[in-house]
Amino acid sequence: MNDCIFCKISKGEILSAKVYEDANFFAFLDINPVFDGHLLIIPKKHVVWMQEADDETISGIFKLTKKLMLAVKNGTGCDYVQVSVAGTDVPHFHVHLIPRYFNDNFSKFPTKKYKEGEMEEVAKKIISAL
Amino acid sequence: MNDCIFCKISKGEILSAKVYEDANFFAFLDINPVFDGHLLIIPKKHVVWMQEADDETISGIFKLTKKLMLAVKNGTGCDYVQVSVAGTDVPHFHVHLIPRYFNDNFSKFPTKKYKEGEMEEVAKKIISAL
Repeated sequence: MNDCIFCKISKGEILSAKVYEDANFFAFLDINPVFDGHLLIIPKKHVVWMQEADDETISGIFKLTKKLMLAVKNGTGCDYVQVSVAGTDVPHFHVHLIPRYFNDNFSKFPTKKYKEGEMEEVAKKIISAL
Repeated sequence: MNDCIFCKISKGEILSAKVYEDANFFAFLDINPVFDGHLLIIPKKHVVWMQEADDETISGIFKLTKKLMLAVKNGTGCDYVQVSVAGTDVPHFHVHLIPRYFNDNFSKFPTKKYKEGEMEEVAKKIISAL
């Protein structure tokens, strides 16, 4: 897409710290990293949401994620790599590979408890939407 | 694995609010959800870390993730679904599908800026580990 910053990065029109590139995917360092080595992987083909990507793109990007998370771990010395797809920042499907440390103490999202019977009702609604 | 809680759930030895099951994967509601409909997808075969899973498992679980994130969105009415793999809670590879709302105001992880030349050095280290 013409005015998409991630499309421009994958075409080399905007410079980035590239880590990997093939015919379909492009991986580069996030310029605002959580920790050094925070990586983004994008498909070259523009789609906004993960659920819009075709199955071949899904398979390819996550097999590459697996490979690159090992390189991020070994290259940075972090304890583990968190994989995250959210998608409200830049509207081009991207996978975050975030180096994490056991002692980084980032707060988790707050959680709730289901009331009696509520969990089964929610499960039914999701199953109906399948 | 004998004493793994997720293995027991996928075998039905521990009850769960199941949403999906096939020969290789099992999806059920997290009992401590961030929001209603927070889903976990696991491979039936026990592996601890995502990077230990074989490519077929990776392809399968994320194609299923794509399918189920649409069902979670439509079943719960959330604004979008965040996909996350961290893996420090239960030592059996699992994908979180977290219903999110544009106004949920969850704080993001803190970020940093690279110093001049630092980003390229980090990229080189990761490339060397590839």
